[in-house]
Amino acid sequence: MPKVYLAGPDVFLPDAIEIGRQKKLLCSRYGLEGLFPFDNEITTSESGQRVDRLIYRANEAMMRNADLGIFNLTPFRGPSADAGTVFELGLMVGLGKRVFGYTNDASDYAHRVSTSAATGLQTRPLQDAHGMTVENFGNSDNLMIEWSVVEHGGFPIVRNPVKASNPFDDLSGFERCVRLASEALLK
Amino acid sequence: MPKVYLAGPDVFLPDAIEIGRQKKLLCSRYGLEGLFPFDNEITTSESGQRVDRLIYRANEAMMRNADLGIFNLTPFRGPSADAGTVFELGLMVGLGKRVFGYTNDASDYAHRVSTSAATGLQTRPLQDAHGMTVENFGNSDNLMIEWSVVEHGGFPIVRNPVKASNPFDDLSGFERCVRLASEALLK
Repeated sequence: MPKVYLAGPDVFLPDAIEIGRQKKLLCSRYGLEGLFPFDNEITTSESGQRVDRLIYRANEAMMRNADLGIFNLTPFRGPSADAGTVFELGLMVGLGKRVFGYTNDASDYAHRVSTSAATGLQTRPLQDAHGMTVENFGNSDNLMIEWSVVEHGGFPIVRNPVKASNPFDDLSGFERCVRLASEALLK
Repeated sequence: MPKVYLAGPDVFLPDAIEIGRQKKLLCSRYGLEGLFPFDNEITTSESGQRVDRLIYRANEAMMRNADLGIFNLTPFRGPSADAGTVFELGLMVGLGKRVFGYTNDASDYAHRVSTSAATGLQTRPLQDAHGMTVENFGNSDNLMIEWSVVEHGGFPIVRNPVKASNPFDDLSGFERCVRLASEALLK
């Protein structure tokens, strides 16, 4: 059964373990095995290493062991996806794995930056408050994220408009990715 | 001469080409060849592909051709590093290349999140306005970024406190990375 690394800021949710359980259940319904970072057991007693370093190592090993990745690219604490998730997207692309992505915010990146109080300045070409160019290609995030998913997964990022107060735990965009992955890998 | 991919939000600066020129000059002083994304020539006429997709492909090819990467991880439009840069960090780690990083903001990630008007809520454990956990390991960014640089470069992220109005173009942290890379590769 193909193994899917389940990447996203979901690990920061108060009910992260339950979300991971639901994601793994959805995967199994489509013939895939979900690997969730919290499945890793981290024990610091033997190695004397810092726990955050051990988490890094366990996550990296889990990605090397996976066949593909599904990435929650919903904007997190700013106009872009969670930095840890984006790092993992790059890592799995570099490892030659197939990648799928979804976001629960259907807006364009340039729209989010230009409406943000912290950074917004409307100019042509679009610039932020530091005078730095704002990418304006109609993508959901930085072009490296947008196109890596297309080039190394075969499908655009699923844009799933979610109106919940907390968009991070809605799983309909996730399920769409699971279906795409299942059809692509198991056909 | 080892080839260094020069990653960072520097490409969004108004004087991006000049910054790229300065970075490449610094590299050459230490026996390294700098590769800057703007060195890629993008022509859309032949392929009919979108320009942003062609930029993605050119950047990915440049990273595959590089021996190592130096990453400007200064927080960008939020508490974390630029998403495109973080993707590229992951990609080069996945490709087995050596990576070095610097940030021109010496503060901890948890400090930046907890002092941000958009997200800050002081609780134990630290949570943001969505009730989502804030990593509080004393790192400069998400632990995947922090530890990938240590594990795959050999040195911690260089934290370089810069007081300029625009911290993105200060090159002293960059030069420190060039020196580390040069000593590590050319000794």
